[in-house]
Amino acid sequence: MDTKNISQAVISRLPRYYRYLGDLKDEGTERISSGELSDIMKVTASQIRQDFNNFGGFGQQGYGYNVEYLYDEIGKILGLNEAHHLIIVGAGNLGRALTNYSNYENRGFIFEGIFDHDPSLIGKKIGELTVMPMDELEDFIISRNIDIVVIAIPKTGAVSVADRVVRCGIKAIWNFAHTDLNVPEGVVVENVHLSDSLMKLSYMLTQ
Amino acid sequence: MDTKNISQAVISRLPRYYRYLGDLKDEGTERISSGELSDIMKVTASQIRQDFNNFGGFGQQGYGYNVEYLYDEIGKILGLNEAHHLIIVGAGNLGRALTNYSNYENRGFIFEGIFDHDPSLIGKKIGELTVMPMDELEDFIISRNIDIVVIAIPKTGAVSVADRVVRCGIKAIWNFAHTDLNVPEGVVVENVHLSDSLMKLSYMLTQ
Repeated sequence: MDTKNISQAVISRLPRYYRYLGDLKDEGTERISSGELSDIMKVTASQIRQDFNNFGGFGQQGYGYNVEYLYDEIGKILGLNEAHHLIIVGAGNLGRALTNYSNYENRGFIFEGIFDHDPSLIGKKIGELTVMPMDELEDFIISRNIDIVVIAIPKTGAVSVADRVVRCGIKAIWNFAHTDLNVPEGVVVENVHLSDSLMKLSYMLTQ
Repeated sequence: MDTKNISQAVISRLPRYYRYLGDLKDEGTERISSGELSDIMKVTASQIRQDFNNFGGFGQQGYGYNVEYLYDEIGKILGLNEAHHLIIVGAGNLGRALTNYSNYENRGFIFEGIFDHDPSLIGKKIGELTVMPMDELEDFIISRNIDIVVIAIPKTGAVSVADRVVRCGIKAIWNFAHTDLNVPEGVVVENVHLSDSLMKLSYMLTQ
């Protein structure tokens, strides 16, 4: 399926569909109409149909979508049918929180290592991982087939870490540093700018 | 200024402008044209002018914008000219990380308290805060004029916490729980769904 021209807005909504369908599946729901899905997700049924039409529509019949099929198909589109191997750069509070953050693993996101430049952290256990020194970063990425790097360090160091991991062939960065990263074409960055998010909340509260 | 009808897309871009202008200000830059700002932010100059026109344009003359003025004005629009008083519900790794997350305070976000239902955490120090029990939540919110509640607990408890704080008059929730919250009209929720973000990265990597 050619999914190259799908808008960012549609893509941003896919994980949310996946989340709701996962809950429905866990509750034992087998079929759901776009109308029912619309009610629980608070988006219009026509939005749902339009979004799904980008991927061939997932074959809603008169009697609705098959929940498990739809869940699996959206999972495949999201690339969740194959395992991803991640490392975290930054073993501070945020890095720790991300290591422990709920059930990534059963969605195929496997945290393989955590790195820090602070000598006092190296060797410390964080969950099942042991903090490694930054000079082992490149070897580890290459030998363990890491495909996603999580940057959880302050912005001053983030750009150089991004450069280093991109030079090792990393194509995906999950960036928590409070700065934008300029990466070569073909490398994708998903930013989680927590301060931006908090400022947006402040804006909404002020209005 | 009537800013009621400004699109979500424009609002989402404001914190990023604020971040870049803050950096320019720190570097001592006094004036910048939309063209120069466009170069460093990788958005078109016409996008910048359109965005700023929503707020009256900030008076670019032939010689560009005054950086400090623009920074201050966008700060005011974002509601950063008055202090916000926050509490965090959830003293796990994520709650801890958020308490310590860099310089919120100088943007007027003041963390006043952290709560958890786990008896083994109550009384523990996290930075300058002491973990408080959940049954003190309502009194604390009211007596300390808290205006933003951060929810950093698993999804099972998040809905009931949201109900409790909304009943105390809270109008803004920063939600890290892996679920959507249904709140009454007039209450704003800014979600940080980390798993959604990671799935989006997986999608981009797969394409």
